[in-house]
Parts: sequence; C-alpha cells; structure tokens
Amino acid sequence: MAADSSPRVWLYDTTLRDGAQREGIAFSIEDKIEIAHKLDALGIPFIEGGWPGANPKDVQFFWQLREEPLQQAEIVAFCSTRRPHKVAADDPMLQAILAAGTRWVTLFGKTWDLHVTEGLKTTLDENLAMIRDSIQYLRSQGRHVLYDAEHGFDGYKANPEYALQTLRAAQDAGADWLVLCDTNGGTLPQDIARIVREIVAELGRDLTAQIGIHAHNDSGTAVANSLAAVLEGAAMVQGTINGYGERCGNVDLCSVLPNLQIKLGYDCLPSDRLALLSTTSRAIAEIANLAPDDHAPFVGQSAFAHKGGIHVSAVERNPLTYEHVPPEAIGNQRRIVISEQAGISNIVAKARSFGIQLDKKDPACREILQTLKDLEHRGYQFEVADASFELLVRAALERRPERFQLMGFQVHCDMLRDEKTLLSDAIATIKVAVDGEHILESAEGNGPVSALDEALRKALVKFYPEIASFHLTDYKVRILDSTVGTEAVTRVLVESSDGARRWTTIGVSPNILSASYQAVVDGIEYGLLLQSSARSAASVG
Amino acid sequence: MAADSSPRVWLYDTTLRDGAQREGIAFSIEDKIEIAHKLDALGIPFIEGGWPGANPKDVQFFWQLREEPLQQAEIVAFCSTRRPHKVAADDPMLQAILAAGTRWVTLFGKTWDLHVTEGLKTTLDENLAMIRDSIQYLRSQGRHVLYDAEHGFDGYKANPEYALQTLRAAQDAGADWLVLCDTNGGTLPQDIARIVREIVAELGRDLTAQIGIHAHNDSGTAVANSLAAVLEGAAMVQGTINGYGERCGNVDLCSVLPNLQIKLGYDCLPSDRLALLSTTSRAIAEIANLAPDDHAPFVGQSAFAHKGGIHVSAVERNPLTYEHVPPEAIGNQRRIVISEQAGISNIVAKARSFGIQLDKKDPACREILQTLKDLEHRGYQFEVADASFELLVRAALERRPERFQLMGFQVHCDMLRDEKTLLSDAIATIKVAVDGEHILESAEGNGPVSALDEALRKALVKFYPEIASFHLTDYKVRILDSTVGTEAVTRVLVESSDGARRWTTIGVSPNILSASYQAVVDGIEYGLLLQSSARSAASVG
Repeated sequence: MAADSSPRVWLYDTTLRDGAQREGIAFSIEDKIEIAHKLDALGIPFIEGGWPGANPKDVQFFWQLREEPLQQAEIVAFCSTRRPHKVAADDPMLQAILAAGTRWVTLFGKTWDLHVTEGLKTTLDENLAMIRDSIQYLRSQGRHVLYDAEHGFDGYKANPEYALQTLRAAQDAGADWLVLCDTNGGTLPQDIARIVREIVAELGRDLTAQIGIHAHNDSGTAVANSLAAVLEGAAMVQGTINGYGERCGNVDLCSVLPNLQIKLGYDCLPSDRLALLSTTSRAIAEIANLAPDDHAPFVGQSAFAHKGGIHVSAVERNPLTYEHVPPEAIGNQRRIVISEQAGISNIVAKARSFGIQLDKKDPACREILQTLKDLEHRGYQFEVADASFELLVRAALERRPERFQLMGFQVHCDMLRDEKTLLSDAIATIKVAVDGEHILESAEGNGPVSALDEALRKALVKFYPEIASFHLTDYKVRILDSTVGTEAVTRVLVESSDGARRWTTIGVSPNILSASYQAVVDGIEYGLLLQSSARSAASVG
Repeated sequence: MAADSSPRVWLYDTTLRDGAQREGIAFSIEDKIEIAHKLDALGIPFIEGGWPGANPKDVQFFWQLREEPLQQAEIVAFCSTRRPHKVAADDPMLQAILAAGTRWVTLFGKTWDLHVTEGLKTTLDENLAMIRDSIQYLRSQGRHVLYDAEHGFDGYKANPEYALQTLRAAQDAGADWLVLCDTNGGTLPQDIARIVREIVAELGRDLTAQIGIHAHNDSGTAVANSLAAVLEGAAMVQGTINGYGERCGNVDLCSVLPNLQIKLGYDCLPSDRLALLSTTSRAIAEIANLAPDDHAPFVGQSAFAHKGGIHVSAVERNPLTYEHVPPEAIGNQRRIVISEQAGISNIVAKARSFGIQLDKKDPACREILQTLKDLEHRGYQFEVADASFELLVRAALERRPERFQLMGFQVHCDMLRDEKTLLSDAIATIKVAVDGEHILESAEGNGPVSALDEALRKALVKFYPEIASFHLTDYKVRILDSTVGTEAVTRVLVESSDGARRWTTIGVSPNILSASYQAVVDGIEYGLLLQSSARSAASVG
C-alpha cells in the first residue's frame, strides 16, 4: 500500500459513459446507480455518470442519484463544447449538463485540426473560441471543469502548434484538468511518453492545470500508455472497470490501479480499498450481464491459477516463485486448476481446498485422475465446474451420499398458434426413488429444463426441505465438436444459488435434456452438501 | 508493409505449447497439426510444437507432422535442461527432444537464483553446468538451440551477476538465441527496456547470439513489454495467437505483429501475409473451441466497429478520423453496429452493408429504429445476430417473403432408466402452412431443439430443396435478468451454415423452445435469402 507521502494519481472512471459504448452493454438507470455506488465504495474519486445532452436516460440518472447520493466520489457529467457560432449560454447541451447539478463537469473539445475542419466543418479559430467560451460559461455557473482533449495525441502528432493552442485555451478559460485522449487508441507507449513530456515542457511555467490521460486499447497497449503518461507527470488516469468501451475498450482500471499502487507506489485509493477490486470487477460484469474475463490481469479468476504440475508444487512452497503480486492484495485468490494436464499433486491440492485431505499415494488419487481424463475426453470441463468436480472426488472416496435415484422422466412441450400469438406450455413428469420409496411428480415450467428442475425439486423437497431455497441463476449451453463433423455433444453449465452462495455444475450428453438433468442434479446435490457442512460447522462452533 | 531494408523481427509462436496451458484448452493431435499449418501459411518462421519429454501426446504430434510437413516454418521442440548431477546424454528429456527430429530445439533453464536453490534444490554452479552441458549435447547432435531464460527479468532484478552468468553459459555452449522470459508476467515496460539494454551492454562485444523476449500478460502490459524489448534490440518475439496461455495469457502475437509491422516498420512476415491475420486468429479460436474475443485489438470483430452516431458519420467520410490503421491491412473490416444507442444514420449504413439503400427521411427508418429499441428492451441483441437484423429490416420494408407459417408444434422427450444407463428420446411434431397447404411432420433428434429443427426442415424441404444443405453449427443459450429477480427470459443464438457461409440468428422468450424456434426459423429464412441472392447474382453475372 502507498505511504502518505506517495504521489497521488486521481482515478476517473467512465464505465457509465464511455464503457457503455461497448457492444453488448445496455445499462438501465438502476444498473448505473448500482455501479456508481460500487465505484464509490471502492474509493474512485471521479465517476463520470453520462452525457445528459445526448441521452435522455442520463438526465434521469443524475436526478435519481441525488436521492441516493454517493459517499465521497464526485459524480461528473460529460458534454461537448458549444456549437460553432452559437452563444454558450444558449446551447442546449450545456444547459443539460448544468441541469445535471454536478459540481464537476467534463467538457470535450477538438484538438486535431482535421476534426475541426472535416468533422465540425468550422475554422481553427472558431474551435478555440468554442473551447474557451464553453469552459468560461461553465465556470461562471460555479462548475469545476475537466477538459478532455479529444484526439489529443493524434492532434499533437498532426499539428503540435494547434494542439497546444487548444490546451492553452482550455487552461486559460479555467479548466482544472487537461486530459489528453488517445481517442483512436493507436498511439504506442514511447510516443505517449514523448508527447506528454513535450506538452508539459511547452506549456511550461504557465501550466496551472493538471494533466490526465484517457487511453483506448486498439493497439493492446492502453495500460502501458497510461503508466507511461503517469511516469511523465500525468496525475489522472481515466478508464473503465474491466476495460469496457467501444471497439477494443478503454484502459482497464482493474489493471492500471494495482500497477500504480502496488508496483509503482502511487497513492490511488484509500489503503484499505484495493482488496475490493476483484469483487467490484465481477459485480460490475454481472450488472452488465457479461461473463467476467477469467484471464483479466489481477482480477480474473485465472489470474493466479496454476495448472502445470511444476508450477503448482513450486507455488505451494513459495508463492514468489510464480506470482508477481499477492492475490489477496486485490481481493483475488490462488487457484489450483484441475484439467486433463493435471497431475496427482493438483488433485491433492484441489481436494485440500474443499477440505478433503488426500495422500498422494492413495490409489483413489490415480482413480480420480483417470476418471477426470476420461470425462474431459468426452467433453466435460471441470475447470469451470468446481462443484461437479468436488462431487466426483467425493464419489471416488465413497463420501458422496446417494440421496435419490432417477427412474425416468418425460417432458412434453406444446406450442399452438392462437390468433397472432404463440401459446407455449411445458410439463415434466419425473419418477425418483428416495430411500426405496418411489415418488412421481409433475410440474410446469417456462420450458423443458425449468419444468424438469421444478418437478425434481417438488419430488425431493419433502425429504430435503432446504431445496426450497435453491434456484437456477444461470444456464449455458454449448454444442461441442460441431466443427469437426463427429457426433455433436451438448455441454450444459448450470449455476445454482441458495441466496447466499453460488456454484456451477456440468452435464454432457448428445441430448440437451439429459445433459441439463445431470447438471441440475449435481447442482441440487452440491447445495445439500453445502448446507450439511454449514450445519455441522455450526454445531461444532 | 515493411520494405526490404527494414530490420527483421523473428516471430516465434508457442500457441501449441505455452498457449495450451490456458484453462479450457485441450488440443487433440489433429488440432495441433491444423494449427501448425495455419501458422505456417501465415508466415510465422518458428512454431513451437510441444514438450515431448513431458507429454506423450506431443511425441506423437512431432511424428505425425512429418507426414504432413510445413512449407517454410521451423517446427521447434521444447525441453528443460538436464537434471542436476546427471549426464546430458543419459537424460530421458533430452532423448525425447532429439527423437522429435526437429532442426531447432528450445531449451529452458533457470536464471533466478531463488529457483535454482528453492525449485531445483541444487547449487548455482550446478545450474550453470546443466545449461552448458545440455546445450553442448544438443549442438553435438546437430540441433540449433534457442535458450529460454526462465524468469530472465525477475532473475536479473534479484541477482544480475548470476543471471548474466547463465546467459553467458548458454551462449558459450552454442545457443543461437537468448530469449528473456518474463515468466510471472510482472515486469513493466520501463523495466523491460532497462534490463534488455543493460544485458546487451553487459554481454557487450561477446554477444554473438541474438536476444529475444517472451512476455506474459499478468500486468496487462505484455504487448508493450515486447515492443519495448524490440526497441532495445531484441530480434525475436515469442507469443501465442489470441494471447492464449496460463493465467492471463502469453503476449498476443495478433497485437504485436501489426504494431511491429505497420506502425514501427519492422519486417516480420512476407508482405502479402499480414492480411491473413484476422482469419487465422478466428480459425484458431474455433479449433480451440473458444469464443473469439470480439474486442481483441486489430483482429476482433469489434476492433473497427462504430456505434456512436458521431463516429459513424465521421468515419464514413474519412476513416482516418476514428481508425488507427486500415482494417483491411490485417484482414479485418469496418462494422457499423446496430444497437439501442443507434441513430438513423447507423440503420442506413448497416442496411447499405447488406445491399439495401435506405433514405434517411424514409419513415421506415424510424419504424425500424423503434422496433429495434423495443426488441432490445425485451432482451434481443442484434449486435451479435446480424442475420436476424437483416430479416427485421426486410420485414419493415416489406421485402421479407413469408415462406411459411407455423401452426403449432409438440415436442415430447422421454428418459428411462434401463439397467445402469439412461435411454433418451426426443420427438417433435410440427404443423406449418406453405402457400395455403398444411403440412404435418414428425422427426426425432438428440434433444428437443434438434428434433424441432429436423421436423421443420423435413416439412419445408420439398418446397425449398436448398434447405437440405443447411445445418446448425452452434447453439448458445443464456438466461437473462436472472440476477434482478424479474421474470427470466432465455436468449438463444443459433449459428447456421450451408457449408460455405455461416450466419447467426436470435430468439428470445421465457420458453427456451420458443426462443430456439424463433432463432431456427430465422436461420432457415436467412439461408434461403442468401441462396436466392447468390442465384440472382449468378444470373446477372
């Protein structure tokens, strides 16, 4: 953690504005408010909330946020400069940003002469006036202004003199920050470093505003670009959680932050907050309804996963050997991965992680390894289904109680055209044996899988009442081998929850219902296992 | 493209060895051979095929590859140094690498004193002997040797003198290349640059081998690290396609390559090959059975996608305004994205991309935009289902022929326990109307969706015989809104193919079968549309 005397770098999150430009993201107002509060809890000092002039939903966001104000972060509204040859006070965009009622606003303007003449179709002088007037007006209305120099780097490369004029205009008009944007994401770190250095030198003693960097990842160097700018004196990094953003994304704050704070000793967050980073990253992925990137630096589920046998045994002896930072520092954890390449020592380490002590020489180890390899060959993938793997280990050790046996099921789905709508209906009938007793139950559902899940739970709940709290939270299906012309099999992953915890189970079969059934059953069994171990832990306590 | 006089950087691909360490990858031998040929076609000069001493599958790979030899690439076998206090010629690992029969071998050894004493549990001197003996032995057997200095950077940081000794030992024994590995991925670009510079200076005039870099992405800076090393004189970059690799992955050659060749003017590939990069990236993702990263720099589907209204109109006038390199240079393409944030101009641009000229003022534009927003609100996502979007536009313009109407369907699935196995069965019965004629058909399938697909195609094929060539190539299911407690809907994406082309369609419904049906129907309709436009193009030509 950074000491009190460490230089400060201000983080500025734009997940809610630039991040929302990513294909596949469509935040509701409630999503945005939830994200803003998570960023606030993480300790991000500036949170860009949206562009109220361009997006009516964003107007409502700023209003609604006043009802649930942030603890410490500044919420920032975003806006472009006034239109050419208009009066700033009459510009509807600038009115909208004032109506958002934030203390801080970010105004973006053109730095690149090409964009002034080709994009705005106005003169270079008029663009300077637009920057100056807009900032002066916002200042006169009591706002602090961050100035985002769009295409700051490309503009400087094309016409450094003009680019500097735009920055001077912004500073002279009262901007607190001059943020250089690599809008097209094409600049490489050595050029970022040189340009920041030259701009700081050129603005020289007159430089009263602070410099910031806003990087995009089109060259795959956004993290390095941001660090390069900081090392040359930039004191703000703008980015997004998980690197969400248009095209290849904005710079990922989840990578920048630990690099700055742990490795380079900058002060970015209050010292107790960095450990919230991994959960914040995953929670925001969930709100965005995107699968988290398991391979993301620092915060990904696989960032500290060890698969190869050599790595696993070395890292268990001394984490320094194969880990660049302690996973706990960012709230992540080491993970031993089970896969086809696993050796006995991975199996032992993995079993230990769920509380089973195995001896390397126990023949069960080899049996588990063989079963694992056979199943993976058939399309199972236990790396993503920890709960099913634990059940497999327990079965091999004869520590998996057989709670019920499936005798059979039938699922019937109907769809009928009635006037213009299609009416649909799914009914499952299942027969299971519990303690020698045969139970037959039927249930309806939103489709064959949910009907089957309902029927199974209905049949079991009187024996295992805790099942009532379980529900399916995600269901993913993938066809395997469809490209190689062999018979396709279906792999189903089911995520279940008991309200407090989540776990993932797997099923594989040529038949989607059969694969789903396996995963659903594993999900219920694992839930019962969790509850019984919670109970025995409580009774010990 | 690089001119003949450009400095050369040699690319070394390790997708088949280090890349295969990624969680979720399990290549078959056939997969590996197919990938090796794709890398060869791309023009990669060195392809690491595997570690024959550690993995029996890899032994077979090298043998099998001799039957289908590469055109120009060197295939390389990978291996560790001999064991402590053994004779190199007796080491089974070294025998295995010789048996692979490659001209080039990569030998990795320890650079970091900590790993020698803690990992190998031997002395620093013995480690030097292990490096020297192993390389000398391989050279005596006629092999060219690349030496991978494991933990090259961390080792140098911890004990620069010893790290240099290991490198000198490798060079003196006859290694052609000294490749510095950032094994834990924790080093930042400025440190990479400094250390490469110091090592080159320290080895000084004695430096006869060439220097290479092998970066991992744990800090999110692997691309910048590789470029930094090249700028300090490294002439080889080791990495993987799509950045596959353990934890956060190896450096992504798909990012490094265009940066080196287009931006920095290095000569990496024959000049006509760079345009194969995007298809190579996607083909290897497909072989690995991983979804391609749409947001990957340069090669991702979204790397040149424009969503915001301002960007779209500007980029259409002058691509330079918002594109850092021409997408065609790496075989990618510009894409106009349709989404909730779309404006009329996006709709017009998108329609143009599939050959429909729309006028901005046409009231159909506004109608399409409204439909789009309504459907996306209900969970559709047309960004990932271009074919369904095209059908939607055609429907609005009354250019979507109604080829059939669904009257209803029933699907019945049975599963029965017979001895130890579960027998399963799915039958669908469907009724459709074509040109006023009612057709009733039943079919079996591997599950309810495939039964439904079969029955529908059976019903339609006598009217549209081209349907016989269509088949489902992928099927993905996702439950939406499961986290927020509202009624969950199911989103189904279906990828169809006619053998030559692929297209993706979407369906959304609370009922998975109904969502699947929509996507399957769109898939068939779009296939028919493609075939009829191919026919009319052929008759014009």
